[in-house]
Amino acid sequence: MPSAAAQMLRVITGSALNLLLLAAPVSLWLRWHSGVSIWVFLTAAISLVPAAGLIGAATEHLARRAGPTLGGFLNATFGNAAELIIAIAALRAHHAEVVKASITGSIIGNLLLVFGLSCYVGGLKHGRQTFNRVSAGSATVMLFLAVVALVMPAVVALVSYGSLEAHPTVIDHLSFWSSIVLLGVYGAGLIFAFRSQRDPLRGDPGEEHGTPLGVAPAIALLAVATIITAVEAEVLIQALEPALSGLGMSELFAGVIVVALVGNAAEHYSAVTAARDNEMALALEISVGSSAQIALMVAPALVLLSYALGSPMSLVFNAFEITAIGLSVFAVALVAQDGETNWLEGLQLLGVYVIFAIAFYLIPEP
Amino acid sequence: MPSAAAQMLRVITGSALNLLLLAAPVSLWLRWHSGVSIWVFLTAAISLVPAAGLIGAATEHLARRAGPTLGGFLNATFGNAAELIIAIAALRAHHAEVVKASITGSIIGNLLLVFGLSCYVGGLKHGRQTFNRVSAGSATVMLFLAVVALVMPAVVALVSYGSLEAHPTVIDHLSFWSSIVLLGVYGAGLIFAFRSQRDPLRGDPGEEHGTPLGVAPAIALLAVATIITAVEAEVLIQALEPALSGLGMSELFAGVIVVALVGNAAEHYSAVTAARDNEMALALEISVGSSAQIALMVAPALVLLSYALGSPMSLVFNAFEITAIGLSVFAVALVAQDGETNWLEGLQLLGVYVIFAIAFYLIPEP
Amino acid sequence: MPSAAAQMLRVITGSALNLLLLAAPVSLWLRWHSGVSIWVFLTAAISLVPAAGLIGAATEHLARRAGPTLGGFLNATFGNAAELIIAIAALRAHHAEVVKASITGSIIGNLLLVFGLSCYVGGLKHGRQTFNRVSAGSATVMLFLAVVALVMPAVVALVSYGSLEAHPTVIDHLSFWSSIVLLGVYGAGLIFAFRSQRDPLRGDPGEEHGTPLGVAPAIALLAVATIITAVEAEVLIQALEPALSGLGMSELFAGVIVVALVGNAAEHYSAVTAARDNEMALALEISVGSSAQIALMVAPALVLLSYALGSPMSLVFNAFEITAIGLSVFAVALVAQDGETNWLEGLQLLGVYVIFAIAFYLIPEP
Repeated sequence: MPSAAAQMLRVITGSALNLLLLAAPVSLWLRWHSGVSIWVFLTAAISLVPAAGLIGAATEHLARRAGPTLGGFLNATFGNAAELIIAIAALRAHHAEVVKASITGSIIGNLLLVFGLSCYVGGLKHGRQTFNRVSAGSATVMLFLAVVALVMPAVVALVSYGSLEAHPTVIDHLSFWSSIVLLGVYGAGLIFAFRSQRDPLRGDPGEEHGTPLGVAPAIALLAVATIITAVEAEVLIQALEPALSGLGMSELFAGVIVVALVGNAAEHYSAVTAARDNEMALALEISVGSSAQIALMVAPALVLLSYALGSPMSLVFNAFEITAIGLSVFAVALVAQDGETNWLEGLQLLGVYVIFAIAFYLIPEP
Repeated sequence: MPSAAAQMLRVITGSALNLLLLAAPVSLWLRWHSGVSIWVFLTAAISLVPAAGLIGAATEHLARRAGPTLGGFLNATFGNAAELIIAIAALRAHHAEVVKASITGSIIGNLLLVFGLSCYVGGLKHGRQTFNRVSAGSATVMLFLAVVALVMPAVVALVSYGSLEAHPTVIDHLSFWSSIVLLGVYGAGLIFAFRSQRDPLRGDPGEEHGTPLGVAPAIALLAVATIITAVEAEVLIQALEPALSGLGMSELFAGVIVVALVGNAAEHYSAVTAARDNEMALALEISVGSSAQIALMVAPALVLLSYALGSPMSLVFNAFEITAIGLSVFAVALVAQDGETNWLEGLQLLGVYVIFAIAFYLIPEP
Repeated sequence: MPSAAAQMLRVITGSALNLLLLAAPVSLWLRWHSGVSIWVFLTAAISLVPAAGLIGAATEHLARRAGPTLGGFLNATFGNAAELIIAIAALRAHHAEVVKASITGSIIGNLLLVFGLSCYVGGLKHGRQTFNRVSAGSATVMLFLAVVALVMPAVVALVSYGSLEAHPTVIDHLSFWSSIVLLGVYGAGLIFAFRSQRDPLRGDPGEEHGTPLGVAPAIALLAVATIITAVEAEVLIQALEPALSGLGMSELFAGVIVVALVGNAAEHYSAVTAARDNEMALALEISVGSSAQIALMVAPALVLLSYALGSPMSLVFNAFEITAIGLSVFAVALVAQDGETNWLEGLQLLGVYVIFAIAFYLIPEP
């Protein structure tokens, strides 16, 4: 058995994507020698892609060592750790709008971009691809539950107070209790998964290839990847202001498109690979399951954390975000309901994403 | 053959639920000796649960005696008699907001609470429960038609007049004609049921157990239950004001949650029993069918009646009610579309209901 | 082989509907002798029904001669030529509201009226009618993509600028780029159809009866029908003002109901005929496919054309139009998802259409 360090190295050098880790020291060097700038933002963003991927890989290895029950719990908890870490950094810097935008972006990105690309790439190679509709049902319903929790505070704010800017106690209470309900249902989902040995969000793991890492190297890898992610997330957020003015982006666009893309690159890769291997059920579960996890676990956890961080964040999303989330859920429900996809349906989902991206780019700062 | 009185007594003593009828004399005694109060409201509410159930039972017995054609008509007309009676009492006391809130509450309660509880209880006992998707299709479409009729007046009011408070003639005309269309389609649904011997809202009655009551005792029971319901509904509405201030509830919350729960307790019981017997198709039909009946028959009938009662009510629901109804219909369509349910999906529907209930509780009075 | 003129005559005299062509000279005579009036409007409207039908028939004949690839392209391009010609006439006369209203009306009319009538007529004759759900899936998704493109500009206008009246550059840019995306996906749909020999919008052509026209007479017929349509569209729009004031209609109602009915009469006839022959899949594809074609091809083409015509039109639909389009798509998705229809579901769709028509009639001019 190779040493822990050798095993870690094997995983890190196993994917060409990890070459992007070289951007991490560059971003730090730039940050400390010439201050924050667009280049700091870009290099930090690039380095976060493989770092987020390594957290996922380390979790996967740990989960396979831990057995199904604890493993499912690990996957469910650390599956979106990168998004969570980036969001906490943004929250600490009082960029609540960016946090909410990146939650939105992760949800619509997973649904439209990840699943759309999967349908397109898989469909070009295999033609019509079929899957069991039922397997995606539970995750879609979970996602919809989250949509309700995300929509109601905004509706109350808009109708009762005439604007989404107001921030009365009622909205905070509603956000708080809705977050508790979401986390409760998410916890029930974990129990469901343990009992039925079928994760309602992630589906069957399928046969994994290769030998899993030992426990120690896996924990070490998880620690290293988490530290890199935390540092680079901090740097990314520090360089946000110059990047916004330099690239002419709004906070909304930066959160919905840029930050969300960085945090979810790993999901993109896994889902598209699954689709190319003609495993559309898995691709659907990765994209819908990841969206649901963000909506049911990451978003409410951030609301509760925001109180601890002294920068309270409510679940009041703006009208664009709500429209985009609602329409994305409906689009995927529509595509998935007949149990088959083709490249044209993939292109249609990508078309929806592009229209959203254009709209988010053009929307003026309030 | 036992006497009519003995047969009635057999039905009344056949269910432990009917012990709650004892709350009826208590509520009347309190009302006449110490005036209206929270306790009058609570005892009246409790007594309405078995009274509404007895109307349903008597109708069922009559329907079985009357043969399928007349029986279907009886079930369709008296199936939600209790809701109608309570609503008329509220309408006569000029509580139009409570009436509309209780229509909303009956629709979302039947969809989320009744069906959610059915999925949860049935799923815990039987695991995955399957049913024929088609059987629920027609009722879901009917419900959606009603959603359109309930949404359009509010959209016109909001967009053309800038508020939901305005009450111009245009909205009254739209409400009136939409109600006529709804009742027309509901009537066509009855004809469809008679022709195909399959009620699009209620589904197959299944094999009923026990001997039905004779016609005379059934009519007597129906009369007695209706009188109790009418009296207690009157008492409930009289005690509404002190209950609202005493319990710190808004009219909206009282209507959506409290009144709706009281009027639909019988449906809850039947649907959950069906789910426990692994008859999910029946549970789905009871919940969706009852929602559709309220939206297509009770709501438009109340609009037409409101003119006769000199307290005109339009179909303009507020933004919270419309959001809740729309999202509930979508949630159930999503859960039911794959033809199977489990306890987690039930819990998810209950989670949506709880979030709505919290929101309706927190929404400030306008 | 009969002469070209004889072949054309055979097609024209083959349908009793073409008797309505006699309204064309009447409308011209009235227009030139007594000026514009309600009667000019009505006779022009009547003559457009068979003219639009003949464009469709000529295209069909040409397509059958041209082979599947070019034929599919012809059908896809000329399938809604009549709507396009009427819309261009309205656009040139600066009636952008009528154009957008007629796009709305074509979409909801095809979904609710055409498909509803098909379900109703087919269901009365055949009872329960079943079809392959998958065949309609792709068209429904395409339609939904268009809904997103039609909704986003209005949401941005409403939320960022507080009204749908404002006409800032941002909205024009969003409309323009969304139109490009729509046309791109529409083009991809054509490629998909050529490759799979299965048109995602129109479905299998089925066995056509009768000998197709020769190429020359078909082109001649297409030319004649297009000229009649262009002339009568011009006359119709000229007579719009007197018709509006004479009949007490708003521009909105005229566009959504009247103009849309005129332009889509041919689709109505084909779909209902298909339903009566128990080919519900074809009826569904005609109605959903025609809606999708209008939304993905006609609407964006008109946006791009509007710049060339010096009367720029954005994709900002009003709140009524968006609500109606969104609810119609949802209604058809709901009815079609279980793969069967009956006359009651047809009546329900018609009920939704009637409620929309009443609302559009009652909505006051802004």
